[in-house]
Amino acid sequence: MSYYFTTTIQASFEEAIIRATESLKKEGFGVLTEIKIHEKLKEKLDVDFPRYIILGACNPAFAYKALQAENKIGTMLPCNVIVQDLGNGEIEVAAVNPIESMKAIQNPDLGAVAIQVTEMLKRVIEAI
Amino acid sequence: MSYYFTTTIQASFEEAIIRATESLKKEGFGVLTEIKIHEKLKEKLDVDFPRYIILGACNPAFAYKALQAENKIGTMLPCNVIVQDLGNGEIEVAAVNPIESMKAIQNPDLGAVAIQVTEMLKRVIEAI
Repeated sequence: MSYYFTTTIQASFEEAIIRATESLKKEGFGVLTEIKIHEKLKEKLDVDFPRYIILGACNPAFAYKALQAENKIGTMLPCNVIVQDLGNGEIEVAAVNPIESMKAIQNPDLGAVAIQVTEMLKRVIEAI
Repeated sequence: MSYYFTTTIQASFEEAIIRATESLKKEGFGVLTEIKIHEKLKEKLDVDFPRYIILGACNPAFAYKALQAENKIGTMLPCNVIVQDLGNGEIEVAAVNPIESMKAIQNPDLGAVAIQVTEMLKRVIEAI
């Protein structure tokens, strides 16, 4: 399995961010953080990079379950959704696949949560 | 290998955050995001959780290399450092181990970056 779920849509960059945020909301995820990678790279390294944003998404009930099962899991939270400009009016939206990113962790309680969250994030991408 | 590097220190919670941030800075990481998990869980679920913060740390030069090697790697960025209150004046600071979290990704160029960043984050934790 890949470490992400992805879709490519014809939309403006801003519109894609709104659609991703709304799709996340329907599965109970709020967006806690937003990193504009292209702006950071311009500011820090003076390089031009296509528009690329990282949305840090969190479903509080599932985050709570994950933290109770594994108190260092915050090193892998929130669940990220990226929105990137591929050019020619195409925008890619991709979400992390927690089953893959948390593969190294041997914890059945966490595993059960990761399976559920993975299904949710898969639906988030499919619904965009 | 574990999916994190950790240390436990005797300090106030605020002091631990400052020490983590300074240690990150010495290795070229800025803190881009800050999520107060205990506040979010109180606000959203009305549960009491020990103080727990997620610092989203980014070294721009290495993030740029990683993104050039693997354009979906933003689903796993920034590198997180957590600070959590264990009680009795003990605070745990832990950083993600990118080699482990990125294990599922078959990409030698990314792997080379992950090895370097892992060494840096290991030093961040050791120096706190």
